Amino acid sequence: MPRYRVRIEYDGGHFVGWQRQTNGLSVQEALETALERLTGETPRVFGAGRTDAGVHAAGQVAHFDLARDWPVKALRDGANFHLKPLPVAILAAEPAPDDFDARFSAIRRRYRYRILNRRSPPVLERGHVWFFAKPLDALAMQAAAERLIGQHDFSSFRAAQCQAKSPVKTLDRLTVTRLGEEVRVEAEARSFLHNQVRITVGTLARVGEGAWTPDDATRAVRAVDRKAAGPTAPPEGLCLMEVGYSDAGSDEA
Amino acid sequence: MPRYRVRIEYDGGHFVGWQRQTNGLSVQEALETALERLTGETPRVFGAGRTDAGVHAAGQVAHFDLARDWPVKALRDGANFHLKPLPVAILAAEPAPDDFDARFSAIRRRYRYRILNRRSPPVLERGHVWFFAKPLDALAMQAAAERLIGQHDFSSFRAAQCQAKSPVKTLDRLTVTRLGEEVRVEAEARSFLHNQVRITVGTLARVGEGAWTPDDATRAVRAVDRKAAGPTAPPEGLCLMEVGYSDAGSDEA
Repeated sequence: MPRYRVRIEYDGGHFVGWQRQTNGLSVQEALETALERLTGETPRVFGAGRTDAGVHAAGQVAHFDLARDWPVKALRDGANFHLKPLPVAILAAEPAPDDFDARFSAIRRRYRYRILNRRSPPVLERGHVWFFAKPLDALAMQAAAERLIGQHDFSSFRAAQCQAKSPVKTLDRLTVTRLGEEVRVEAEARSFLHNQVRITVGTLARVGEGAWTPDDATRAVRAVDRKAAGPTAPPEGLCLMEVGYSDAGSDEA
Repeated sequence: MPRYRVRIEYDGGHFVGWQRQTNGLSVQEALETALERLTGETPRVFGAGRTDAGVHAAGQVAHFDLARDWPVKALRDGANFHLKPLPVAILAAEPAPDDFDARFSAIRRRYRYRILNRRSPPVLERGHVWFFAKPLDALAMQAAAERLIGQHDFSSFRAAQCQAKSPVKTLDRLTVTRLGEEVRVEAEARSFLHNQVRITVGTLARVGEGAWTPDDATRAVRAVDRKAAGPTAPPEGLCLMEVGYSDAGSDEA
């Protein structure tokens, strides 16, 4: 059966998360329904990152198998037609090798977290930023971020329901940049623990508002205890930007 | 009576436009109602740009008079409290001289128009971009844009209902930039005719898709005839970014 790889954009605020659930519409179900309407088949869609409810994606990757061969542009445009008016779209589709697995073949995931740091509530960016009214010191946050880069036991930055076998992860990149009223956190790793980016941002915000120092970030990771890190930042600021694979992947349809 | 000057952000998709109308909620009415609830007075709010339904603002400026003196931060935060949950917020408030007029004192207006130029429909930017699936040549659009800069009779770029006394305007800046899948048009002038930016973008898109050449932009402006220019681009891509005044204006609350 031919396998297909797709790059997907969605507004997480309209879904219960990536994964199929009984309590509402998931991105996975939306895609499976659209593909069923298009192809008459009932493919199962597997995503690279199982984003939580409210978390957005600009570059989620997924794979699925179809019995029939499809021209990738027809597959993309046809699925997008059947996805309307839901806020999810396939940006690109391409044939993939039989052993390609969107989740397990991924070697890199990049997330962006946006904080709107001003007194007035968000309007144009509503639902896509964490509104934080207290002034944030982005330089202090960047200093704290540097303490978290590298291989660590990230148990302090892990949701209770996290199913990963090991809490040891390697954080390859964690940067904090101020762009006017926005404080932007970018995080990159082979893989992340459940809620790791959001707990990281919650911890950095503690430092940014002056409640903690960058040393407290070091203390938090060394404690190997969820209670030592900051709060879980809300989902709406988070966006899965990109998933990387060892193959180049033309990623063009 | 003390006069106040405010900088405002709003999502135009939720309003019938800036100006009070009988067919729905305008930004002006939303602000006047919030200020009435806050102050107990019934101020009239005057805006710098009377944006159409669907057009957004990141930096609209307005003025109003109140009988009482207000600390500007309390005015901003109090008005924002009463504006909730409408997608409009006051970003900054400051006292203004009695002769300050948001509309008539303005010496510069800057608009941004965003085109999402890809095959897949907008998701994260839905309602904030013009979706244009045919490939656009941004360099050809920039070449055409240069033909429109300067002082011209812009009758070809003017809506039938435009109330300006003269069609002669000076376009100080018109740039076209490609940022990945987005083609961004920035326009700056002392003032614009009704729909001038949207007709300009519609004309540039004709050039970008290859239907017209940059010479046709010259022809369009010389014709002094609305029918010689391109279509009016949809409102959702347009955003009033900034209004400039000859006073420096701390613009901070």
